[in-house]
Amino acid sequence: MNDDALTFFAPAYLHDFARRVFVSFGVPEADAVQAADVLQAADLRGIDSHGVARLKTYVDMLTLGRINPTPNITVVRERPGTATVDGDNGLGLVVGPWANRLAMDKAEAVGSGWVSVCNTNHYGIAGYYALEALKRDLIGFSMTTSTKLVAPLWGGERMLGTNPIATAFPGLEEPPVVVDLATSAVAYGKIEIAARKGEPIPEGWAIDRTGAMTTDPKGMVDGGALLPLGSDREHGGHKGYGLSVMVDVLSAVLSGANWGPYAPPFALRQEIPARSVGKGIGHCFGALDIGGFIDPDEFKRQMDDYIRTFRATRPAPGTDGPLIPGDPERAAEADRAATGIPVLPAVVRDLEEVSRITGVAFG
Amino acid sequence: MNDDALTFFAPAYLHDFARRVFVSFGVPEADAVQAADVLQAADLRGIDSHGVARLKTYVDMLTLGRINPTPNITVVRERPGTATVDGDNGLGLVVGPWANRLAMDKAEAVGSGWVSVCNTNHYGIAGYYALEALKRDLIGFSMTTSTKLVAPLWGGERMLGTNPIATAFPGLEEPPVVVDLATSAVAYGKIEIAARKGEPIPEGWAIDRTGAMTTDPKGMVDGGALLPLGSDREHGGHKGYGLSVMVDVLSAVLSGANWGPYAPPFALRQEIPARSVGKGIGHCFGALDIGGFIDPDEFKRQMDDYIRTFRATRPAPGTDGPLIPGDPERAAEADRAATGIPVLPAVVRDLEEVSRITGVAFG
Repeated sequence: MNDDALTFFAPAYLHDFARRVFVSFGVPEADAVQAADVLQAADLRGIDSHGVARLKTYVDMLTLGRINPTPNITVVRERPGTATVDGDNGLGLVVGPWANRLAMDKAEAVGSGWVSVCNTNHYGIAGYYALEALKRDLIGFSMTTSTKLVAPLWGGERMLGTNPIATAFPGLEEPPVVVDLATSAVAYGKIEIAARKGEPIPEGWAIDRTGAMTTDPKGMVDGGALLPLGSDREHGGHKGYGLSVMVDVLSAVLSGANWGPYAPPFALRQEIPARSVGKGIGHCFGALDIGGFIDPDEFKRQMDDYIRTFRATRPAPGTDGPLIPGDPERAAEADRAATGIPVLPAVVRDLEEVSRITGVAFG
Repeated sequence: MNDDALTFFAPAYLHDFARRVFVSFGVPEADAVQAADVLQAADLRGIDSHGVARLKTYVDMLTLGRINPTPNITVVRERPGTATVDGDNGLGLVVGPWANRLAMDKAEAVGSGWVSVCNTNHYGIAGYYALEALKRDLIGFSMTTSTKLVAPLWGGERMLGTNPIATAFPGLEEPPVVVDLATSAVAYGKIEIAARKGEPIPEGWAIDRTGAMTTDPKGMVDGGALLPLGSDREHGGHKGYGLSVMVDVLSAVLSGANWGPYAPPFALRQEIPARSVGKGIGHCFGALDIGGFIDPDEFKRQMDDYIRTFRATRPAPGTDGPLIPGDPERAAEADRAATGIPVLPAVVRDLEEVSRITGVAFG
């Protein structure tokens, strides 16, 4: 069997499978749809690591009772433009959208709404939440902590998650600008791919377990760490580290979740942290009402001009010129909506295993 | 004369000089004090490029009538948690603090306040505004656009400013975490220093006028561009580019200022953009009421734990381990409060020139 041969699935088929899997654990129907929506957004947008490829991990955690399928999500503190939400250890794919809606409601009510979330779990792609805000003429912001994987600049060990930030800005005729980035130099998935292929990784991606910069992907996987965006001091590694700290504090310290190296593991293979300093992991959502600043149509017209202006940038030699943030994901979405979602053999096997565990038919 | 010999000035002396210089142009006394405060914050915190070293440029612009010394700053649109401010082409050092106070007032009123600003000018160091928020138990955010200097990833020309982001988080016993970073890989000042010394710059800092990566600082100065944080695609240059776009849109598109390559020049030597798409440059300030999320003392206790935990990170080989964001600036401040502010001979000559132009005594 060719281990790289892809199987293509209709998006609706994978959505339905994921929904029924969640329901099989007692997740309420509406929540299961919501969770499947978030996974599907990742699969459609080409962020394969965060779609159905993660379903097996959610199933593992639900099977062990490490995630609460029927959380009582509550607001523990609130002002007109702020709130802290306790996710009652529910699926991040359910708690995240709930808290994001609250931030958006607050932005509609007073212009600006910010919600920090504790006692939650992995919430899927950060970009999903910013895209939701576009539907309500809001500028959304989404951040989350995750299990430690990244070293601070000059650190020799994992202390921070890949701590992403996402936001999106609507155009009128042009598609939106969607910024969605992890604050690490590179995604862990790229290290895994290089390790599987036995290829070296570039300088600036990772350190090994001694804390030294390495080009051996296995050196990172085996107790090493990713480097922050900027990689080293000379290229601004302190900036990526600072951004990661910002995400961590807004998501986890502000909400009373576990920050930094104490974020609980998402997958079974990950170690349990030495201490607990709060409840679960943390997210942070923000929303701004465009109409609270400027006429929304005028904003969108300017964004159209912005997008066209940046597309017309003189290209660097050997390139086709700059992309607009969000272009690659939009291209993937157009492609996959037409041809289906490509799934790797290893992920197909995982989904078959999920089917056996849950009794939900697959394939 | 040794061109690197520093002259040390008492902070109060430089503050007084700057204040009187602004007053000499008709800037009201309170505004002149405010402007001098912002410049002094840069000088004390070791960000020499943004302190009195910039005074000559402000004087040039005031002399030519390019900055309004007595602006009528107005709120052009507002909701309880948002506002757009028109700075009436005043000093950014006056308009910025005004708008930042409005964001903080809104955060006190409803928990979260965001203010976008058009028709303004260079506002000093981004970090100043986040530090002001700490005095009111708020988490502050500060962003600004600036004259084009940075290429988008895969772009061959200047399209964005260095577009900084700053925020700060208070500790209880520990000093605050202060994140203050430009979204370019490196500061323009470092290119200038290398050019003056005739030394090469590292790969990943800049491109030349053809759009090709260069290690010749003069190649960047002469019509080239800085690269965004992350430098190239492999190391996340698309992320620095995305962050820069975020700052640009929140500061300039949202407020109706000139975005991207159309930000007007700050200094006389810079070219006038081909188009005007709004009013002046743009800033964006945000403030969150910590008490709207969590008990502020509990937050600060957790931040103390956070800071101590990160200080205890195992160091990477050959380093003393990670710093806490804000450490270098705090060290500079302690040093300079004691020994005075070191000023380069070229800057002393600029200040003497300012003295001649304005009639305000110096030296």
